[in-house]
Amino acid sequence: MAERHRTWGRWGPDDERGSTNYVSRDKVREAAGLVRTGQVFSLATPFDRAGPNHGRPGSPRVNPQHIMFRHGGDMLADWENARHGMRSTDDGVYMPLQAATQWDAFCHVFFDGVTYNGHGPESVTGAGAAHNSITEVRETTTGRGVLLDFPRFYGVDWLEPEQAVQDDDLAACAEHQGVVIGEGDIVLVRTGHMERRRQEEFWGDYAAGPAPGLGLSACDYLLPRKVAAVASDTWGLEVVPCESLPDVPFGMHVVMLVNAGVLIGEIWDLDALALACAADGVYEFFLSAPPLRITGAVGSPLNPIAVK
Amino acid sequence: MAERHRTWGRWGPDDERGSTNYVSRDKVREAAGLVRTGQVFSLATPFDRAGPNHGRPGSPRVNPQHIMFRHGGDMLADWENARHGMRSTDDGVYMPLQAATQWDAFCHVFFDGVTYNGHGPESVTGAGAAHNSITEVRETTTGRGVLLDFPRFYGVDWLEPEQAVQDDDLAACAEHQGVVIGEGDIVLVRTGHMERRRQEEFWGDYAAGPAPGLGLSACDYLLPRKVAAVASDTWGLEVVPCESLPDVPFGMHVVMLVNAGVLIGEIWDLDALALACAADGVYEFFLSAPPLRITGAVGSPLNPIAVK
Amino acid sequence: MAERHRTWGRWGPDDERGSTNYVSRDKVREAAGLVRTGQVFSLATPFDRAGPNHGRPGSPRVNPQHIMFRHGGDMLADWENARHGMRSTDDGVYMPLQAATQWDAFCHVFFDGVTYNGHGPESVTGAGAAHNSITEVRETTTGRGVLLDFPRFYGVDWLEPEQAVQDDDLAACAEHQGVVIGEGDIVLVRTGHMERRRQEEFWGDYAAGPAPGLGLSACDYLLPRKVAAVASDTWGLEVVPCESLPDVPFGMHVVMLVNAGVLIGEIWDLDALALACAADGVYEFFLSAPPLRITGAVGSPLNPIAVK
Amino acid sequence: MAERHRTWGRWGPDDERGSTNYVSRDKVREAAGLVRTGQVFSLATPFDRAGPNHGRPGSPRVNPQHIMFRHGGDMLADWENARHGMRSTDDGVYMPLQAATQWDAFCHVFFDGVTYNGHGPESVTGAGAAHNSITEVRETTTGRGVLLDFPRFYGVDWLEPEQAVQDDDLAACAEHQGVVIGEGDIVLVRTGHMERRRQEEFWGDYAAGPAPGLGLSACDYLLPRKVAAVASDTWGLEVVPCESLPDVPFGMHVVMLVNAGVLIGEIWDLDALALACAADGVYEFFLSAPPLRITGAVGSPLNPIAVK
Repeated sequence: MAERHRTWGRWGPDDERGSTNYVSRDKVREAAGLVRTGQVFSLATPFDRAGPNHGRPGSPRVNPQHIMFRHGGDMLADWENARHGMRSTDDGVYMPLQAATQWDAFCHVFFDGVTYNGHGPESVTGAGAAHNSITEVRETTTGRGVLLDFPRFYGVDWLEPEQAVQDDDLAACAEHQGVVIGEGDIVLVRTGHMERRRQEEFWGDYAAGPAPGLGLSACDYLLPRKVAAVASDTWGLEVVPCESLPDVPFGMHVVMLVNAGVLIGEIWDLDALALACAADGVYEFFLSAPPLRITGAVGSPLNPIAVK
Repeated sequence: MAERHRTWGRWGPDDERGSTNYVSRDKVREAAGLVRTGQVFSLATPFDRAGPNHGRPGSPRVNPQHIMFRHGGDMLADWENARHGMRSTDDGVYMPLQAATQWDAFCHVFFDGVTYNGHGPESVTGAGAAHNSITEVRETTTGRGVLLDFPRFYGVDWLEPEQAVQDDDLAACAEHQGVVIGEGDIVLVRTGHMERRRQEEFWGDYAAGPAPGLGLSACDYLLPRKVAAVASDTWGLEVVPCESLPDVPFGMHVVMLVNAGVLIGEIWDLDALALACAADGVYEFFLSAPPLRITGAVGSPLNPIAVK
Repeated sequence: MAERHRTWGRWGPDDERGSTNYVSRDKVREAAGLVRTGQVFSLATPFDRAGPNHGRPGSPRVNPQHIMFRHGGDMLADWENARHGMRSTDDGVYMPLQAATQWDAFCHVFFDGVTYNGHGPESVTGAGAAHNSITEVRETTTGRGVLLDFPRFYGVDWLEPEQAVQDDDLAACAEHQGVVIGEGDIVLVRTGHMERRRQEEFWGDYAAGPAPGLGLSACDYLLPRKVAAVASDTWGLEVVPCESLPDVPFGMHVVMLVNAGVLIGEIWDLDALALACAADGVYEFFLSAPPLRITGAVGSPLNPIAVK
Repeated sequence: MAERHRTWGRWGPDDERGSTNYVSRDKVREAAGLVRTGQVFSLATPFDRAGPNHGRPGSPRVNPQHIMFRHGGDMLADWENARHGMRSTDDGVYMPLQAATQWDAFCHVFFDGVTYNGHGPESVTGAGAAHNSITEVRETTTGRGVLLDFPRFYGVDWLEPEQAVQDDDLAACAEHQGVVIGEGDIVLVRTGHMERRRQEEFWGDYAAGPAPGLGLSACDYLLPRKVAAVASDTWGLEVVPCESLPDVPFGMHVVMLVNAGVLIGEIWDLDALALACAADGVYEFFLSAPPLRITGAVGSPLNPIAVK
């Protein structure tokens, strides 16, 4: 399957944008034409110490650590002076780049020693990614977004962990919603899993735990349609535990990132957008989802913006 | 001047979005209508150890520290196993939130002990900003962008440090470019200072050093026009050294952030966008400039996206 | 009780070393005289992502995050060059200062708005502690150490969570071990709780969970003897849940840190030292336990060294 | 020279303590016997944003970033509640492990692809050092310390940058001071360079700039005497620019760390200790200089303690 969907060389041997190349100027212009109501939706989760990671011992994936360098309390500690004139506050952060709403860069995953377009392990070192960094797609992740809202399609509150969405499901949901997935699209797959965690126990085992998500056959539906990226409201996009390939824990990651050059987005909050789409029956929109420009990064936090 | 431009209470006592409230649905829809060519521009500088900060001893403003948790070299160190099957890379960052391309939140600045809408110092603590966090504007920073390109207007490569752009200059440049600044606009002021550093010495004294920028009278031009935000290609937006108010080193920050509730953007890379605007003579565009959603942050890194 | 043990002013109004002032030159010289076998023991736990913290959502107390800037894999990625001549590796850390083996500074705790020697909240700001920083005791934490090994005294593997060690227990154990606690001593209280976690589940709920430890009456035994510091193999020194004072979750912290100016050490690994003490029957030794010199720190990681 | 001083295999093929194995129990006991006055000296510099690094763009060696999670200002922001009962403060740090007073681990340096005892690059990965981590010597860096105070020996305030201390100089200074360097010693070489920076401009170009220090021939004096470690008050121990070997910028690092297994200590503050040694004419003392126990670290911050 991986070889069937491989796009290496399609945009030249030096290409590092993969299927986001499908987001042409025409596609961007058409996407802007989808804006009708002017509603704006942030698809980001909160970046803070409350979640979504649960701090497994041994993992570097701690929650985002927001750090105040100087704050209002510092003014109060020097109030005689600070009550007059100008004072400022300042802050910082320590965080894994995939700690919350994020993009995986192609080079987040290697298979048999290579990543997208054939780059070997020496392409990602302590200096960061020399090739396929997430910053390469900073201008090609703005275009048409399409939402597939499976809980509403199925008439349930949320999909269950281990419940897989396959190629037929994608086709049926798209048809039901009256939307056609096409070249250069960023496809948003809503499983309701984040909504569930919000209602039940925020965040619990959300990160790295069992989850609903795409089954392997989803690749056969999405990739021939030349999508640029696929994002979801789960931590891994794929159904977890993943459908098995021999020795490959996350098979879709291999097919999409390494072979097809299709971006994977994870931990996106699609709930408010989905509510609005259900209200007006329109599941396509303008989407601006640029990564931060952290040189050499193999993933990126972001605040994706959908405009209906 | 601060009181003349004060908007406190205009959107209610609990408002934390300030003048970004001017970015109404109508304004967003109109902005989307500006997209004609489909060109996409990232206005972010590289976030890395090379700049733009020069590491003044004593300051917490170090450059963004990109950290590789696991990379291709780890595969090479275990090549017998890693050459087969799937492997992943992972990374993180330590950075001041205003280390590179950024928004200042309203509560980045206090004057006489209060910030926008009258919140006192107790509104920003070690837990972050309880009010006026930059995350409050995560859905109201997408709309119409307008570029004012002063070097091209003046026929120079760049403005000089200490050279101030005043109200008359703004009016003349806008007229010359054939663009009208209006309600809800995000105004981008290009001084050429970043271009200069790029050509001469990257980054040198760019951060915290002398710079061209807006003079105080610029407020009298911009704020009555109800702009949502003003951003520039310098580290402080204002001309540096700033025009003096008694005891106020950064007077425009006080007028705009504290009183008018107008966002300030700094260290934006406007050069490629400016080139394209000069080429087609169109200085207005769709702009999506959302902050990251770091809970309680008083500033935010971002990757602003302009679409012509 | 707090007032009974208060030492404020005993060493002058400007003193920031508290009871570590008892570690006089004479005491240090006598302590050096305790060295008989030349055995050296590190009392530090490993500082790494495996523990001892379990990453409670919302807490800044993540495990130490060791970060490799440049490592052997970077050499392998450039092997043609790196196989010849000199190459170096480099690393860093992000960590809470009380993430593993540590000292609490006096100013880690305030009671009724003041800490040791009467300093108010304005003495600890975003710039760190202006008074009572842990760095103040960097030269007064080297002297005589005494171990009280309660599991061996009681003939059990470890004390149970919620099991309190009171004044009488301290007296009985010291007498049984043939050791007298005196002026300037650093007293090490072994509960076996760390040994238990090592055998059962490393680290589990060790940090912030229920634990054996000192009961409040321990103050009445230790503080009149003019000890300089008390450390233990638990995360909080006190029995947890703590013995109740009205509105004071950690009463001994208030008595010792705020009033008596006695340092508290936590998460010390006393097991190897205890084995050696049991073997030769000698429970006193030379101890060098300096904090790192992080300016303004309110706690410090350390590697305490005991020499028998 | 490197091969002449190689100790690989002397303590077995699995040894990771190198020449610190010379610090036997007898040596520790003898060292304790050197304590006469009971004076305690911290040899650490301040760890803070003021220095000693000057933030070269591109380098990960930023100054230690002390971070307050919660401080007195937070109490003031909630004073109605915080004025009663118990409150605590908390803090953390982000820092390169060699940012200030430090040990280099053997595996900080590789030559021709190997480090001490023949370990290749795969021994240090993103998971840290599997062999030769600085934590291996956490119990073998406590013993006899000897100070060689070159400025006093020469009757100058400080040595000049580029001024090399050679084998003959070491012999002459030791003889002048009446001290004999022997097996297991930790030798402290004072150049006065830190004192100079303290008087002239703190810290200026101290880190990575030209400096006085040991010349290559110093190895021929020190290593046959079986010293355990050598530390200095400069950032690189060696004279900078270093004496040239073909293709080896820091030749002593290669000889000492890679071949002899002798630790290198840098940025130690020897000034107060030197004053005391000059006062009583005794240049030997007990020294406890354990690294932090950061699992897999290739260097370590520390607070070395000398006791006269």
